[in-house]
Amino acid sequence: MIRVGIIGGTGYTGVELLRILTRHPGVDISVITSRAEAGLSVTELFPNLRGYIDLTFVEPASARLTDCDLVFSATPNGVAMTYARELIDAGVRLIDIAADFRIKDRVIWEQWYGMEHVCPELLAEAVYGLPELNRKQIREARLVANPGCYPTAIVLGLIPLLEINCVELETLIADAKSGVSGAGRGAKVSSLLAEASDNLKAYGVAGHRHGPEIEQTLENVTGREVFLTFVPHLAPMIRGIHATMYARATQAVPDLQKLYEKRYASEPFVDVMPADHHPDTRSVRGSNMCRISVHRPGDRDRLVVLSVIDNLVKGAAGQAVQNMNIMFGLDESGGLMAPPLLP
Amino acid sequence: MIRVGIIGGTGYTGVELLRILTRHPGVDISVITSRAEAGLSVTELFPNLRGYIDLTFVEPASARLTDCDLVFSATPNGVAMTYARELIDAGVRLIDIAADFRIKDRVIWEQWYGMEHVCPELLAEAVYGLPELNRKQIREARLVANPGCYPTAIVLGLIPLLEINCVELETLIADAKSGVSGAGRGAKVSSLLAEASDNLKAYGVAGHRHGPEIEQTLENVTGREVFLTFVPHLAPMIRGIHATMYARATQAVPDLQKLYEKRYASEPFVDVMPADHHPDTRSVRGSNMCRISVHRPGDRDRLVVLSVIDNLVKGAAGQAVQNMNIMFGLDESGGLMAPPLLP
Amino acid sequence: MIRVGIIGGTGYTGVELLRILTRHPGVDISVITSRAEAGLSVTELFPNLRGYIDLTFVEPASARLTDCDLVFSATPNGVAMTYARELIDAGVRLIDIAADFRIKDRVIWEQWYGMEHVCPELLAEAVYGLPELNRKQIREARLVANPGCYPTAIVLGLIPLLEINCVELETLIADAKSGVSGAGRGAKVSSLLAEASDNLKAYGVAGHRHGPEIEQTLENVTGREVFLTFVPHLAPMIRGIHATMYARATQAVPDLQKLYEKRYASEPFVDVMPADHHPDTRSVRGSNMCRISVHRPGDRDRLVVLSVIDNLVKGAAGQAVQNMNIMFGLDESGGLMAPPLLP
Amino acid sequence: MIRVGIIGGTGYTGVELLRILTRHPGVDISVITSRAEAGLSVTELFPNLRGYIDLTFVEPASARLTDCDLVFSATPNGVAMTYARELIDAGVRLIDIAADFRIKDRVIWEQWYGMEHVCPELLAEAVYGLPELNRKQIREARLVANPGCYPTAIVLGLIPLLEINCVELETLIADAKSGVSGAGRGAKVSSLLAEASDNLKAYGVAGHRHGPEIEQTLENVTGREVFLTFVPHLAPMIRGIHATMYARATQAVPDLQKLYEKRYASEPFVDVMPADHHPDTRSVRGSNMCRISVHRPGDRDRLVVLSVIDNLVKGAAGQAVQNMNIMFGLDESGGLMAPPLLP
Repeated sequence: MIRVGIIGGTGYTGVELLRILTRHPGVDISVITSRAEAGLSVTELFPNLRGYIDLTFVEPASARLTDCDLVFSATPNGVAMTYARELIDAGVRLIDIAADFRIKDRVIWEQWYGMEHVCPELLAEAVYGLPELNRKQIREARLVANPGCYPTAIVLGLIPLLEINCVELETLIADAKSGVSGAGRGAKVSSLLAEASDNLKAYGVAGHRHGPEIEQTLENVTGREVFLTFVPHLAPMIRGIHATMYARATQAVPDLQKLYEKRYASEPFVDVMPADHHPDTRSVRGSNMCRISVHRPGDRDRLVVLSVIDNLVKGAAGQAVQNMNIMFGLDESGGLMAPPLLP
Repeated sequence: MIRVGIIGGTGYTGVELLRILTRHPGVDISVITSRAEAGLSVTELFPNLRGYIDLTFVEPASARLTDCDLVFSATPNGVAMTYARELIDAGVRLIDIAADFRIKDRVIWEQWYGMEHVCPELLAEAVYGLPELNRKQIREARLVANPGCYPTAIVLGLIPLLEINCVELETLIADAKSGVSGAGRGAKVSSLLAEASDNLKAYGVAGHRHGPEIEQTLENVTGREVFLTFVPHLAPMIRGIHATMYARATQAVPDLQKLYEKRYASEPFVDVMPADHHPDTRSVRGSNMCRISVHRPGDRDRLVVLSVIDNLVKGAAGQAVQNMNIMFGLDESGGLMAPPLLP
Repeated sequence: MIRVGIIGGTGYTGVELLRILTRHPGVDISVITSRAEAGLSVTELFPNLRGYIDLTFVEPASARLTDCDLVFSATPNGVAMTYARELIDAGVRLIDIAADFRIKDRVIWEQWYGMEHVCPELLAEAVYGLPELNRKQIREARLVANPGCYPTAIVLGLIPLLEINCVELETLIADAKSGVSGAGRGAKVSSLLAEASDNLKAYGVAGHRHGPEIEQTLENVTGREVFLTFVPHLAPMIRGIHATMYARATQAVPDLQKLYEKRYASEPFVDVMPADHHPDTRSVRGSNMCRISVHRPGDRDRLVVLSVIDNLVKGAAGQAVQNMNIMFGLDESGGLMAPPLLP
Repeated sequence: MIRVGIIGGTGYTGVELLRILTRHPGVDISVITSRAEAGLSVTELFPNLRGYIDLTFVEPASARLTDCDLVFSATPNGVAMTYARELIDAGVRLIDIAADFRIKDRVIWEQWYGMEHVCPELLAEAVYGLPELNRKQIREARLVANPGCYPTAIVLGLIPLLEINCVELETLIADAKSGVSGAGRGAKVSSLLAEASDNLKAYGVAGHRHGPEIEQTLENVTGREVFLTFVPHLAPMIRGIHATMYARATQAVPDLQKLYEKRYASEPFVDVMPADHHPDTRSVRGSNMCRISVHRPGDRDRLVVLSVIDNLVKGAAGQAVQNMNIMFGLDESGGLMAPPLLP
């Protein structure tokens, strides 16, 4: 049994980690911390877990995290970097579900996240935890930077095109729509039901933190500079990201359906839909699956890729568990095999 | 392995049965029928099941249902009664998730369902499949009438009060709120998102089919006549029933919290909330749990019971699987233990 | 033109007042205050008003409220009582849309609202602003206590029964379901879309502030003591209250349909539905109408009344404008005649 | 008073026309037809209109439409063309809110709409009813083809860029998200709340009927061939379209903010948001406004335009009334000036 600790367990990533780990046969959740809710029973905050878990939030200071084999950091950005050094040095492996170690270039990170990086020496070592790209490195990693939700959906949708180098790299577009849980469990006016329901809007057109993360990852795939126009939208739903990507073919494009099916044939959590199908976000609700379809409307040179994930699972907690499974040599889908909830 | 057949698998009860049974270790789904969708792959209709199931809908006529150990009937009302006789005679056990065998009095049934009952000879034998009341009879049953969604939520909420005979039986009230999936997957104007979203309304105040079913069950509990005022409401959500029951105490009422906790202590799918808590429907989303709380506001003689279920699980497919588990001597919670999805 | 001021204009009552008043022919909005947003253009916060209004929030301290003919107080509870004295003394009439002056008994008010009442001397003078009960007193009032949203829906539903004294007063029940905007525009976790959507729950079963307000009003109607069991629920919608009332007949009940139609025949904002109809909340969305239907299921002695309002209009800002119209001798429906938005 | 007839009044366009026209001072609704609901009171179907309208649906055959000054056709596609000739010949002006007369090329129309056009001789005369482009021709038109909802949002967003010829015409992209009411009031499984809620999906990537309509209109603006990649999405909301357009600059781009503000300065129903703002669909809910913002992220050569409308108002009934106002020399905003409903 792997002894697991969770730092910052009161957000949506926290409850989702608990939901998944309670049905994982090889994991023992040793400790879960929360500054604000220390002393409270987990099921008091998350009654859906009644009968599945018997834990109480503890103060981070008093949590014996160094006894764990693995720690998931589910805190806001800027927290994991304050204790990563200590955990790694103590031999504890760390998966940061926030953004602290995703961007290799410290200057760019500090620019987008608006704070000083206090642990830059681990940036180079941190492995970007997208199994479909970095499975081998994840296996050995001491520190995994779990990808953002938008980057997961968008990068998985574009990889096959970029790997065979058949589209323009300077005109890529990703138009993404996210459910409101992507904004977290913090109390914000813009996330209120009365504000966000029966409504849809774009935000951050001028620039979003996930933009540089996506470009960095795509550049690792292609080895060349990539310009992506990325526009996120807030959609009136709880979970789900739908990313619609547009790319312009630069050369003869092969059979796209076969290209995608072959690329992801052995991936347990990427499902390529049959030709002419469109994935809907609910078809992955509560699951770690990314469902993709690829299109070439009118046989013009414009390609369209649709990619859906559950932002809290493949876009956060589920992918973190997938990474854990890889890191510890477990069945990669341990804890993650349950059909999505539909309707 | 139990060989299972599903008749009428294209509705919400059908997809929910499939979702649950694919993770049940002791079940082999042999056949699934649909008149309208015969020849279609199940995953074409329900893409959430891609990777979990490899079945095609077949014509009822050509389905070899008599090879099954158990058949779930997930058809509209009035269909199961047309083939129940044949299946039972062939030694196949049958769980009807519709209403054909729920009401013992044929005349009342015909009055509420507006058709002739073509298999009245099995009405007496059919066991009302509420495990919390009839577990022993379910074990031996050849034919189980799976309870309606409203009756499940309401009856479970009232049993402890009625069993100790401490409330008036002629003034019971159940004010119930249901998600739209309770109206099924059929195309109806009133179930459209543009009609039912951001809206709430009562319906059937003059009388609803589940009324006599509830009264019959409560009368079995008390042995006396019961009058229930039952008002169902349509709430703008996909899943969930919230039943609010009002009862008037007739005598000294014991410690209600203890009464409820004790009554359901050994029930795997009834969870009594701590005192002064209120269950929310999402806390059981996708699960077979019924969560209940009991209140006595202002210490007046009026008691209030809150009871929530997922109408498609404990209110339909999940309870059917629970009944199957009991009928075949399996672990009662087989296939049914996964934490609800929250948020 | 009536010169109107609005104190605390950044909440949902504020924006709704502005939406209504911009189409009112006899009103000039002189000033709108906000502590938090002083200096901000109103349309920056509420872009739906672009082109309809050209105002900027000002500090309450610098607002010349005493130049107004009427002030609407749309602040949280406990604020209006701090300046009511000053405004009234200056000859400004005041409509408090919060709860400060709704309850006549200061002790009860302080108990439920958890603070000291700093202006108790105006409690007796304040007129409870339900036009269907107190139109005459409203006309002359210097200070109107605008009713709560739940009380409006519930009281209007019960008045006809109580006025003819045909139901038990000690067993009244009101099961009410409210949209999330009823909790205001404040940032709260429980009002987040990801928490409140696809969910329904009761709250405050042990007691809710609107309980004593409703009982006080019903006792004014009957002249006798009334016990109401009131259970509010949070429903996953933006606007709307659906109140379902249960009452037990004590004597021969007259033709209920006629009773209700006659009682409200000349009321511009109460619509009695035809027999056997059920009102839905969306049928009053954005409007000041209260729609009611009355039922006697199975001709038993239990009566059921359904009453719907838009909590932000008839339950708050719209009723306030209706009161203003009455106070200033204007057409009572000025600014309030626009068909509800459906779908 | 203009005598107006409505053909096919039971859909969402019908009820929206009624909602708008009941507050229009210069219109008398003479007749409203429905094959399915003939004999039914309008308010029976649409209770929101109780107190605002007193009409009954009549059989089309018995409706004296030729007595009208203007007929709105709110029927499904393919119906208006069967009676357009007769009405026009009788001197009745006609606004078809469906698609029969939108596309000038009969062959393309028949290809996309899958039926023969039975009134092709009026295609050339029909005026495409987008006031912002064709106000002058609308004034004199006998037959107006009211634009589709997607085309309205997308074309209004792109006009300023195309008129000054500063973007590539072969790489335009429109990623559009629509509320479910866009699919109409017909009973369809895919529009059920339980299917469409908490879900988002693209559809028609291979081609959508509004594609050629948009390209035809944009080509009229530029005088050159335009290739648009258009991907519609279904979003879980009742009303609203959010169109996100991507264009590549071909030359020095002027101050975009000023360009848009100037182009639409005198348009009553196009509102250009301040720089760096994002419009949300709810900010136009229930109103005839189109709200637009224009962006140039990172000062690269990629331009992003956001455009929102209410699909049932500016995208259908509201624009039809705007066209009527122009055709009859009325105030162009008659019946259309009411602030959107927010929240």
